Amino acid sequence: MRLTIGVDVGGTKVAAGVVDTTGTVHRTVRQPTPSTEGPDAATEVVCAAIEELLGDPGLGAEVDGIGIGTPGFVDESRSVVTFAPNLPWREEPLRSRVHERFGLPVVVENDANAAAWAEVRFGAAQNASEVVCVTLGTGIGGGLVLGGEPYRGRFGIAAEIGHFQVVPNGRRCGCGKDGCWEQYASGRALVATARSLMDSVPERAVRLREQCGDDSQQLTGQDVMTAAQAGDAIALEAFAVVGAWAGQGIAALTAILDPEYVVLGGGVADGGEIIMDPMRAAFQRHVTGGSFRRLPELRQAQLGSAAGLVGAADLARR
Amino acid sequence: MRLTIGVDVGGTKVAAGVVDTTGTVHRTVRQPTPSTEGPDAATEVVCAAIEELLGDPGLGAEVDGIGIGTPGFVDESRSVVTFAPNLPWREEPLRSRVHERFGLPVVVENDANAAAWAEVRFGAAQNASEVVCVTLGTGIGGGLVLGGEPYRGRFGIAAEIGHFQVVPNGRRCGCGKDGCWEQYASGRALVATARSLMDSVPERAVRLREQCGDDSQQLTGQDVMTAAQAGDAIALEAFAVVGAWAGQGIAALTAILDPEYVVLGGGVADGGEIIMDPMRAAFQRHVTGGSFRRLPELRQAQLGSAAGLVGAADLARR
Amino acid sequence: MRLTIGVDVGGTKVAAGVVDTTGTVHRTVRQPTPSTEGPDAATEVVCAAIEELLGDPGLGAEVDGIGIGTPGFVDESRSVVTFAPNLPWREEPLRSRVHERFGLPVVVENDANAAAWAEVRFGAAQNASEVVCVTLGTGIGGGLVLGGEPYRGRFGIAAEIGHFQVVPNGRRCGCGKDGCWEQYASGRALVATARSLMDSVPERAVRLREQCGDDSQQLTGQDVMTAAQAGDAIALEAFAVVGAWAGQGIAALTAILDPEYVVLGGGVADGGEIIMDPMRAAFQRHVTGGSFRRLPELRQAQLGSAAGLVGAADLARR
Amino acid sequence: MRLTIGVDVGGTKVAAGVVDTTGTVHRTVRQPTPSTEGPDAATEVVCAAIEELLGDPGLGAEVDGIGIGTPGFVDESRSVVTFAPNLPWREEPLRSRVHERFGLPVVVENDANAAAWAEVRFGAAQNASEVVCVTLGTGIGGGLVLGGEPYRGRFGIAAEIGHFQVVPNGRRCGCGKDGCWEQYASGRALVATARSLMDSVPERAVRLREQCGDDSQQLTGQDVMTAAQAGDAIALEAFAVVGAWAGQGIAALTAILDPEYVVLGGGVADGGEIIMDPMRAAFQRHVTGGSFRRLPELRQAQLGSAAGLVGAADLARR
Repeated sequence: MRLTIGVDVGGTKVAAGVVDTTGTVHRTVRQPTPSTEGPDAATEVVCAAIEELLGDPGLGAEVDGIGIGTPGFVDESRSVVTFAPNLPWREEPLRSRVHERFGLPVVVENDANAAAWAEVRFGAAQNASEVVCVTLGTGIGGGLVLGGEPYRGRFGIAAEIGHFQVVPNGRRCGCGKDGCWEQYASGRALVATARSLMDSVPERAVRLREQCGDDSQQLTGQDVMTAAQAGDAIALEAFAVVGAWAGQGIAALTAILDPEYVVLGGGVADGGEIIMDPMRAAFQRHVTGGSFRRLPELRQAQLGSAAGLVGAADLARR
Repeated sequence: MRLTIGVDVGGTKVAAGVVDTTGTVHRTVRQPTPSTEGPDAATEVVCAAIEELLGDPGLGAEVDGIGIGTPGFVDESRSVVTFAPNLPWREEPLRSRVHERFGLPVVVENDANAAAWAEVRFGAAQNASEVVCVTLGTGIGGGLVLGGEPYRGRFGIAAEIGHFQVVPNGRRCGCGKDGCWEQYASGRALVATARSLMDSVPERAVRLREQCGDDSQQLTGQDVMTAAQAGDAIALEAFAVVGAWAGQGIAALTAILDPEYVVLGGGVADGGEIIMDPMRAAFQRHVTGGSFRRLPELRQAQLGSAAGLVGAADLARR
Repeated sequence: MRLTIGVDVGGTKVAAGVVDTTGTVHRTVRQPTPSTEGPDAATEVVCAAIEELLGDPGLGAEVDGIGIGTPGFVDESRSVVTFAPNLPWREEPLRSRVHERFGLPVVVENDANAAAWAEVRFGAAQNASEVVCVTLGTGIGGGLVLGGEPYRGRFGIAAEIGHFQVVPNGRRCGCGKDGCWEQYASGRALVATARSLMDSVPERAVRLREQCGDDSQQLTGQDVMTAAQAGDAIALEAFAVVGAWAGQGIAALTAILDPEYVVLGGGVADGGEIIMDPMRAAFQRHVTGGSFRRLPELRQAQLGSAAGLVGAADLARR
Repeated sequence: MRLTIGVDVGGTKVAAGVVDTTGTVHRTVRQPTPSTEGPDAATEVVCAAIEELLGDPGLGAEVDGIGIGTPGFVDESRSVVTFAPNLPWREEPLRSRVHERFGLPVVVENDANAAAWAEVRFGAAQNASEVVCVTLGTGIGGGLVLGGEPYRGRFGIAAEIGHFQVVPNGRRCGCGKDGCWEQYASGRALVATARSLMDSVPERAVRLREQCGDDSQQLTGQDVMTAAQAGDAIALEAFAVVGAWAGQGIAALTAILDPEYVVLGGGVADGGEIIMDPMRAAFQRHVTGGSFRRLPELRQAQLGSAAGLVGAADLARR
């Protein structure tokens, strides 16, 4: 069986695994990301993880390629990490560094694209050609598969879907602009919405207040999720508000891209029907041409946190 | 020299021409579109135009393919016009009809996609792989070329870029939704904006009022263009407002698609720098990650009203 | 007992009544408004109604003043109707005309102010000094009582509360501007919202579709009310949407005016808790300083369609 | 000549002065506000300032009343400061405290109301009955004079005009709500706008970058003012953007209140025509019924930082 290694570089940890052609992960290693020690240290941690897997007596010898998913911008040749927020890499020639070390073919891919690819190959959107993956985490990440291939754009930075404007003159975004989708439909937006509702109508947020010790500034996304699952009215409403914004943005992406599936991942999507229901309702209301066209199906992601690793490994085969 | 026929079906007229491999049009015929007489009459006009061109003594014999650009939705097999606003076609099997009649290979394509393709092959975005074409006409049409190919989406209806929402709860759109981009950056928006400004501050709209006989209800897009070119303050401001909305929407499309070029066509784009200047300024302000990334170039379309015909003809070769 | 006559001039009918100091109406007459026959005809109908009441054998002799409520702008001396939409009056010296005819003291007041005054004197906001009255009819009308007196503004045209902007670049308003509150929280907005929801998700609008013969273009406000009262999901949602916009606007008015009561009248407010519930919830969420301040009470109007007449009559006593 | 003392309590200093019936200030004292030492210390500083003025050999004996302007909420009896941001007072019985100490009549008034009153008595809006005062400082403060009297609302907290919503789901405000006017038209908004423009198009912000040492995070309102006066394109544009939002909000206030004057004070208004021009233009475009009505005049405040003190002193005479 042909095996490849997939690496998922995150802001806090590097995860790597040996993956077979069915997307099954055979062994995984995890190491903290040394984000403050310069680019070489970060590259070294990636290499150490790969080395450990290659040294596996049963698996290492069969590995014939390496795929690396990384946050940030990857250049159009899939070689160089030009910029990665929360990582020390700037114009880091990651592919050649890793290739020189191990002599195996290496591909470098944006992590959201890698995760999207994994969902298309082995997850929620198998065999589909046009797929939009939306990761509702702290912020919003995006990955596109178009025409059956990962879509990277001309300069390698397509699918910055968290940063198209949904509200003119809206909430300030960390990216420096106003009204980005991420400010309305992400995990951070979920917490901000719950906090604001809780402060406005505290009497209706009983469970939510317990959850955060009655201090809305301490509220976390997990608190909102727990309270919502326990039926807290305000937590549910926060999910409804955020879900409606999510659906509205998906309607925009659908007008532009006409996908077969929109796959929702990330911590907010773990809310399941609590978030999917209002999302689908808003999507249906906002999408143009609704009754005259076929619409994409909105699905929850299936591969969870392994998606980036699995997708990177699979891309190494291509 | 290899020749193909391109047909551009519009709401008011059908234009067809014989096109060579350099995009040069050798002969053109035009006929009014019989929009009220049922699907067969419309198909017949298309066939009559083709027939006339095929009968040309010098050119007809060399034609070896037919491409048809049509408004509305074309199914994913590029055969059937499923729905076309302002035309009588509903599930019209246009490709087989035309093929049966002439025995030549036929492709059917959405007209905006055909025009986008023409700009990539012979116009403002030659040789580019990732291109967004925006037609600022009465409404807004869009065509995408991604990965070097026309991008149609899963169900054949991608690039409905006039109908993604830019203002929540914004102006009602003819599509039944609120706040569509088309309501802010199209020719119709240009006229509405000029009218509203003219009614608010008539004393500053001298030239514009002459242009429409002092009756803002009679104002046309051409009036606004003429007055702007003559330096009318309000007409120029209307272009600035519409240009800013155009730039804002292009920033959203760029965040999602990361194109190399954004090509602007349609009557509003004929304003040249009057519209391109405010559009570029707004684009630069609104695009996410501006200083950390390469940005697409915003260019005026070059092929004018022939783009649809030329693009359809070229697609017939593929 | 001291009696006065109150006249309520509407676009379709003129209502007049004899009112005592407790706000009780002792006799009423109604006549159609001759809106197309010039200003004199309209004034004449007002006079005819007054004449009939004055001729009443038991009541007429005790009448010692006349109050007239009219739509549109009344000048600051409360004498002249400067402009009245849907009526032929332009700079009509209504007070002197009526005074010359009957020799009694006459006051002319904007109809929304008159209705607001009636609610303060005899209705939902008795004895209050600071009251905002909001009439959610086809459009939105407003009347203010501030410092215990009707508030008219410097030029007699205060309380055009239907026409402050709640959505920048929002829906076009009949007044020529964008995003006026009236476009979101009026009866017309209720119908538009229900129609749009019904077209988006027809399967959920069973009762509403019955109500309008499955043709959303035929939908009326009464249909939405009837369907909502019968539990139709989409009709209820339309009320929730419109109620939320109403509450949002009331939060703005509260930040500016700090009233004791906000009184809601008009056809939409007849929905009772169907509209008041979402309105109060949105109000509470949107009002600034909520937990650090006392908030106005939101109440339904009590005097119904007699409010204008009763208020005008009462103002004639002052 | 009859004299009164006016006190203006600010977050950083207490200013007090002896004022005559023409609004002339005869002597002023200033002391830092002891904001962290509890309510008594703050009250004591107010009393010390008054004591010093009363001890003036030439003026003290003629003083027959004391007016105190304070930020925050003053109860409807004008006696108690219920809440004052940046000051230690909570339910502070300021009037009785000061009265007990000096035996003179005392009035307590919100500082923005006091300043508005000063402009009506001696400044930009003399003799007017309906005036809206807008202070464009770090935030936005407001004072209303309606019917010739300071308007305080039912609970003493009217004119929170910085906190009515102008953008649904807009920028988060310190008050906990979204889209407050203050987030768009205040001094803070001016800096945020200039910063964002400077970061987007640094090449056009030459003077502005000099002003802040090329570090947009260090930018101050004074920098933007200085650069604008020196003709910096981006600084001027920031004023234009903020001025347009100011004009838009004033259009809303005009629809509701129909004032004779809108008086603009605060640091942003010190920009003079740089801000007043775009403000007036936007006002004219946004105000409802523009050509069918008389409009308020927009004027710069005249009394500067003395307004609060002078207004409080004058109110002590009433």
